[in-house]
Amino acid sequence: MIDFWFELGSNYSYLSVMRIEELARRAGVAIRWQPFLLGPIFASFGWETSPFVLQKEKGAYVWKDMVRQCKKYGLAWKQPTVFPRRAVLPTRVALYAAEKPWIGAFCKAVMLKNFAADDDIDAEESVRAVLDALQLPAAEILREAQSAEQRSQLRAQTEKAKALGIFGAPMFFVKQEMYWGNDRLEDALASLGEA
Amino acid sequence: MIDFWFELGSNYSYLSVMRIEELARRAGVAIRWQPFLLGPIFASFGWETSPFVLQKEKGAYVWKDMVRQCKKYGLAWKQPTVFPRRAVLPTRVALYAAEKPWIGAFCKAVMLKNFAADDDIDAEESVRAVLDALQLPAAEILREAQSAEQRSQLRAQTEKAKALGIFGAPMFFVKQEMYWGNDRLEDALASLGEA
Repeated sequence: MIDFWFELGSNYSYLSVMRIEELARRAGVAIRWQPFLLGPIFASFGWETSPFVLQKEKGAYVWKDMVRQCKKYGLAWKQPTVFPRRAVLPTRVALYAAEKPWIGAFCKAVMLKNFAADDDIDAEESVRAVLDALQLPAAEILREAQSAEQRSQLRAQTEKAKALGIFGAPMFFVKQEMYWGNDRLEDALASLGEA
Repeated sequence: MIDFWFELGSNYSYLSVMRIEELARRAGVAIRWQPFLLGPIFASFGWETSPFVLQKEKGAYVWKDMVRQCKKYGLAWKQPTVFPRRAVLPTRVALYAAEKPWIGAFCKAVMLKNFAADDDIDAEESVRAVLDALQLPAAEILREAQSAEQRSQLRAQTEKAKALGIFGAPMFFVKQEMYWGNDRLEDALASLGEA
């Protein structure tokens, strides 16, 4: 079992969302999907936005790195004109769907919308378009995902992330062991083979 | 040709200093050693010390990551009780020796002192011990490395790092392409094969 903490507006989470299912399948490891919002985490550090925006030099580097990383992994890439994109509604849907069979397909579709189509992911019509394309009952899902109970679940998810010491995304947990970043996905999965 | 920018007090630079010679040899790539000081770079961002010290959560993670990374690469590891260690004198020596045949051996020895022996690296007696162990003329090297000319060279190296947009270490350059972090060493070398 691997806990996969990711944020739908995070570019390095994009790489892992696209890769984790195949890698975990090959390793025989089950994925526990843990969508969360980085905004409140960054806010708790006193940051108003992503460090890639706050730190000019690092930000400039990240977009060059993403071009090379996507080429390496064979993933589509278009630098988003809005970054980081707000992802509250799709995160509510992802948290609602965390144990449903379509969680992976949904997250991949949202990520592609953000990082390959350079398109909004937070408006209700954006999320509905994704659900429609997956032939899922969009109206019902959107209603459920925006219920008071689900809103409270997302707030609890943020608190859980803070309590775990999560400071960025993607973040993987194998039992108590924390692995940070897409670059550690293989190491995290390999650690389960060694155990 | 790969430009290898590293700081002798940086733990992730330790991983690359220990690995780069063998990897570059296998890839048939020459290394241009570019020792530099991160302190003035961080200061230019308004930081008093390493982000691993300034950001508690990330700092706690880094030491766990280092244990796993060193195990993966088969490197010795002992978490330094002083971090980041001041490395001005050994950096002066490294810059003086950048094109000498003993540059790799010297940097490895300093890194092992810092990250495997948890020992000071900045005092003159510390650097002399490293040079003596390598059977190098310590007195002459220490005199040369501390000359006015070498001091001015190190200041110029800092300005060059800033001009290149370097914001952390290790940093690799393949022509104009910047690669950040020990995790990108293999990618940087592979890019030379593709070119």
